[in-house]
Amino acid sequence: MARQAKVGVLGASGYTGSELVRMLLRHPRVEIALLTADRRAGQEMREVFPQFSPFELPKLVSIEGLDWVSLGLDLVFCALPHATTQNVIKELLDKAPSVKVVDLSADFRLSDTAAYAKWYGHEHHAPELQKAAVYGLVEVHRRAIKKARLVANPGCYTTCAQLPLVPLIKEKAIELGEIVVDAKSGMTGAGRSAKEAMLFSEVSEGFHAYGVGHHRHMAELDQEFSAAAGREVVVTFTPHLVPMNRGILSTIYVRGRRGRTPADLHAILSKTYAKEPFVHVLPFGETPQTRHVRGSNMTFIGVASDRIAGRAIVISALDNLVKGASGQAIQNMNLVLGFPETLGIEQVALFP
Amino acid sequence: MARQAKVGVLGASGYTGSELVRMLLRHPRVEIALLTADRRAGQEMREVFPQFSPFELPKLVSIEGLDWVSLGLDLVFCALPHATTQNVIKELLDKAPSVKVVDLSADFRLSDTAAYAKWYGHEHHAPELQKAAVYGLVEVHRRAIKKARLVANPGCYTTCAQLPLVPLIKEKAIELGEIVVDAKSGMTGAGRSAKEAMLFSEVSEGFHAYGVGHHRHMAELDQEFSAAAGREVVVTFTPHLVPMNRGILSTIYVRGRRGRTPADLHAILSKTYAKEPFVHVLPFGETPQTRHVRGSNMTFIGVASDRIAGRAIVISALDNLVKGASGQAIQNMNLVLGFPETLGIEQVALFP
Amino acid sequence: MARQAKVGVLGASGYTGSELVRMLLRHPRVEIALLTADRRAGQEMREVFPQFSPFELPKLVSIEGLDWVSLGLDLVFCALPHATTQNVIKELLDKAPSVKVVDLSADFRLSDTAAYAKWYGHEHHAPELQKAAVYGLVEVHRRAIKKARLVANPGCYTTCAQLPLVPLIKEKAIELGEIVVDAKSGMTGAGRSAKEAMLFSEVSEGFHAYGVGHHRHMAELDQEFSAAAGREVVVTFTPHLVPMNRGILSTIYVRGRRGRTPADLHAILSKTYAKEPFVHVLPFGETPQTRHVRGSNMTFIGVASDRIAGRAIVISALDNLVKGASGQAIQNMNLVLGFPETLGIEQVALFP
Amino acid sequence: MARQAKVGVLGASGYTGSELVRMLLRHPRVEIALLTADRRAGQEMREVFPQFSPFELPKLVSIEGLDWVSLGLDLVFCALPHATTQNVIKELLDKAPSVKVVDLSADFRLSDTAAYAKWYGHEHHAPELQKAAVYGLVEVHRRAIKKARLVANPGCYTTCAQLPLVPLIKEKAIELGEIVVDAKSGMTGAGRSAKEAMLFSEVSEGFHAYGVGHHRHMAELDQEFSAAAGREVVVTFTPHLVPMNRGILSTIYVRGRRGRTPADLHAILSKTYAKEPFVHVLPFGETPQTRHVRGSNMTFIGVASDRIAGRAIVISALDNLVKGASGQAIQNMNLVLGFPETLGIEQVALFP
Repeated sequence: MARQAKVGVLGASGYTGSELVRMLLRHPRVEIALLTADRRAGQEMREVFPQFSPFELPKLVSIEGLDWVSLGLDLVFCALPHATTQNVIKELLDKAPSVKVVDLSADFRLSDTAAYAKWYGHEHHAPELQKAAVYGLVEVHRRAIKKARLVANPGCYTTCAQLPLVPLIKEKAIELGEIVVDAKSGMTGAGRSAKEAMLFSEVSEGFHAYGVGHHRHMAELDQEFSAAAGREVVVTFTPHLVPMNRGILSTIYVRGRRGRTPADLHAILSKTYAKEPFVHVLPFGETPQTRHVRGSNMTFIGVASDRIAGRAIVISALDNLVKGASGQAIQNMNLVLGFPETLGIEQVALFP
Repeated sequence: MARQAKVGVLGASGYTGSELVRMLLRHPRVEIALLTADRRAGQEMREVFPQFSPFELPKLVSIEGLDWVSLGLDLVFCALPHATTQNVIKELLDKAPSVKVVDLSADFRLSDTAAYAKWYGHEHHAPELQKAAVYGLVEVHRRAIKKARLVANPGCYTTCAQLPLVPLIKEKAIELGEIVVDAKSGMTGAGRSAKEAMLFSEVSEGFHAYGVGHHRHMAELDQEFSAAAGREVVVTFTPHLVPMNRGILSTIYVRGRRGRTPADLHAILSKTYAKEPFVHVLPFGETPQTRHVRGSNMTFIGVASDRIAGRAIVISALDNLVKGASGQAIQNMNLVLGFPETLGIEQVALFP
Repeated sequence: MARQAKVGVLGASGYTGSELVRMLLRHPRVEIALLTADRRAGQEMREVFPQFSPFELPKLVSIEGLDWVSLGLDLVFCALPHATTQNVIKELLDKAPSVKVVDLSADFRLSDTAAYAKWYGHEHHAPELQKAAVYGLVEVHRRAIKKARLVANPGCYTTCAQLPLVPLIKEKAIELGEIVVDAKSGMTGAGRSAKEAMLFSEVSEGFHAYGVGHHRHMAELDQEFSAAAGREVVVTFTPHLVPMNRGILSTIYVRGRRGRTPADLHAILSKTYAKEPFVHVLPFGETPQTRHVRGSNMTFIGVASDRIAGRAIVISALDNLVKGASGQAIQNMNLVLGFPETLGIEQVALFP
Repeated sequence: MARQAKVGVLGASGYTGSELVRMLLRHPRVEIALLTADRRAGQEMREVFPQFSPFELPKLVSIEGLDWVSLGLDLVFCALPHATTQNVIKELLDKAPSVKVVDLSADFRLSDTAAYAKWYGHEHHAPELQKAAVYGLVEVHRRAIKKARLVANPGCYTTCAQLPLVPLIKEKAIELGEIVVDAKSGMTGAGRSAKEAMLFSEVSEGFHAYGVGHHRHMAELDQEFSAAAGREVVVTFTPHLVPMNRGILSTIYVRGRRGRTPADLHAILSKTYAKEPFVHVLPFGETPQTRHVRGSNMTFIGVASDRIAGRAIVISALDNLVKGASGQAIQNMNLVLGFPETLGIEQVALFP
């Protein structure tokens, strides 16, 4: 039997952290060797997430003063808050040259330092790494990821928008000036911090948009769509909150270019994803529901005709904590460590 | 004290029926004199809706064989399924010339018999009434409603889309060829019939679009938008289901015409609705949540700038069972019977 | 027209505060003259609760430095956190001798200073008021409340348990040593403070008990049940959290005393509450649902036989924010100010 | 590699059917060879449960006219409605002598034909099988299950009540005349049939008890508790519905016998389940939440002291579709076919 890879999770007390642990516990090639959570240091994982009570896991420790070399980790998942991440990863990669990193924050997703400074309001702390990082949308950048030392795991909203749009943009099949992405997310996308606006009684039995006109995820979309198009692309994007735990659904309005029909767009997506294990294109005219990908690493995509000639409605759905975060992170780990890509992330969706 | 108006509710066992009863029970000028529900005839209202247990209400009866004349009703709310409605109202208006009707079905909303036949797949059974009916969106057609004998209460989706869009269209402030309405509704919009797709376990913890590209509500939008524009207008409209009971939120994407900015659009809406009791325009840049209108007859509207110059995002929210159905029906009744418009529908929203 | 009573709400930024405002806005004899919220002082109520956007309300102010005399209030609702309340009310009653107070906190519910010190871990700050306060369970203490200057509004769990149990205890109809109250509450019972355990993602799609064996509400039950029995009564009480906003349901297990059957227990409750406007006893064998009292001041009670002879299952349901808090507080205000008891709290339940 | 066992699922269009398919798809020793669903015969599984779209599965067929011999199945899961089951299994076992059956209905759980007739209102159609069937609560009847040909998979409520109570009863540690089981279940426990009472809008945002005093699951509890005690035991049991998809939580009130303290009861349960893979006893005083076992085959049990001396509150939680149905069924299959007991059902709980 092959040696188990030793992995660590930095920031294990949040939802992306617990999702990593959920899947890594059953990954056949991995040993969980390190769990950090600064505010919960000294506690057992079961005190933070009781679902892990039956399992043996390392105690939560602080990230301060860890000896990266003696830990002997093969790979580190970084699920820390924005900005903290930059310094931690810089130090980690400096001190432990053989370790690899999959970062779940937004810190290394923008390769352009100017774009980063514009959207985040300060200079990046590790600009040399910013350029070295590989953007971890597997279906688009698989080859580069396999050789990467630092993978920037994509955001949940942006994964959900890119998987249907990047192939259409690459094929020059849609008008670039009229793309509208109306996105809806479950509450886990907002994380586990205790804020009034995220209380059950503030969220259940209601629906609303937020960040209208100026959501940070737009920078990531701009970068990837522009790269796909070979010229600048700016889309309209509005996120909404759904009173549910998991799931993102993006309703995308596009106009076919040069006579491309909705059926043509469907054909492009079907062909692109025919052999992908984690992207499934539904028959033309059918559209997906978030509940049917819950808990799985799957993305479902559907295409339908609008009643206005030439316009199509493309809908994609994924679980924001799995394909939108921790599942995709393990998919990236599998590539980086040379494991089969689907290992440990093959769970079938939990519905109902 | 003025005589109480005697009113009846046809189809009292559905959600719009129970909402009518909820508000009419506390309406100071109304007596509930008739409740029908064919499949539940002979039962007490409390057996169908236990919340009415403490109240005295007429027993549910069948609509068959009612003697409309001797009932002596002043007004009838018709909350029956599609198509049935046409025959019932025709007979009722024939036999009881002094009664007035507010119809909550879709049967009399389309004044064009050809449009009706196209969308519903059969000829209208009462085409002469179809033309006489007044479309009951109070804020647009108030004057005509006051004189009407038959009011066609608007649909919930369409009320939510028309209140923000009709003034913008009338003012020629937006491009008519690029309007996208992405609408999200709570489950009560689908009624109370026992269908697998509406079970709790099929609906909770998930989100999806339906009727993509071909929802019947579009006919109603076409009619009213075209009337407002003075020429044919066709919009893109996609409805979605939210795992909540009440509420519709419409995210509407528009482009200003002839240099109109998002702030200009906001100004038009603010001015239009400055004195309306049931439409409230939020300060520029703020957007509404469905939960803040729950149980009330209020519509909230917000306008924000898109990051793409010239484009605005207009968001409206209402309770589909109140302003989207029964509350607006009582608002129409108040006009038709000469009562103050807000009587009996002044409840403040129930949040949380 | 009679002069409007001037009322204030201390602590208007919490859920019981917003519920008071919701109902007082439509109360025909009341003017809202003061709203306080220390952390939100200087803001408009609409910034804290957007559902009030369409209404004119006093700006939120700090409780510090208020001149109680010049405010000229007739009555103050106190919806402040535990302990703070004692000092505020003491000062208020000292300085403004004509004002009356309905306190929604737990601070004045226990008349025994020793019991208070035991359950709350410190001496009461206003023990002389503690004795003067009247316990505001209207259906039990109506006569005393009418003459009170300070009414201690009962807790939500305890109102739900007392309404069915007090009459049975008074009638010596049940064994006092075997009472089990298994209570389930919606999330608004936990208030609006930003705690991790109250986040949507921690609460939805799950169910659990809390405070097992040692919940503070027990002190209030002990006091009232013992007073009703004329001797010490201690019951088993377990609270649970339901993923819903509003509602408490208590499933109560009792054994009839001296041959009393479940039907006998039902008869006692039916007789006791025959003329009460806000307590409704269902037919024998039927049991209530929280959704059918949502948003109303109503309590529904049902009694059924257990299959074990002599044992009965009594179930009561109310809306924790209305009859369990703010509705009952207005009911108390109506008594204290000499208004009709049901004024302003007659809304019919909102279902669905 | 060992030959894959060929299994069939009768009644694959319900929730226990889809759960079986979810887990069997990833079971390393099983091939899904047959899926039946009479009303959906001829359809693909993906039309009934879209989450299976990416997977190859046999088309749904009718159970009528199947040739059990040529199908060559090793084991059949029967997830059919009550009563139908008896005839189907009788025929199946007659015709295909080598096949084994795990039945998820209630039909073979009662070994006493008189008890069956009493609770179900008719004679059993296969009384000889009724006696041969082994009751499949693995932790209690493991040895007998391994040799069984027909396993009657226990009910969800009853599994949740038996796992904590059977050891306490066997040890004679609690008074048998005072056991109260207050049980709360998510909606999937009610199945997938289209009934008004199960609609989203009837279920969400509310809580209620049902079947008060006379729920059929009681027969199963009587049988197993009486067997454990060696004399007749009758408990009080009240089921409730929680607005969530999955999970059962049982709050159980017991009195220690002969001086047994709550801590003693905890010690008995801890010892009993120390080595069980799917039952986890929490530290004394901690109580479980349904969300922490969601999607897993785990049962969590907690014990706390009541404030009344000698009384304890025991709380158990499981996922009604997994340990309460399909997960336990696969656990039974593993025993019957000689596989490791945990194979294919080791998924970690999905929270949030």
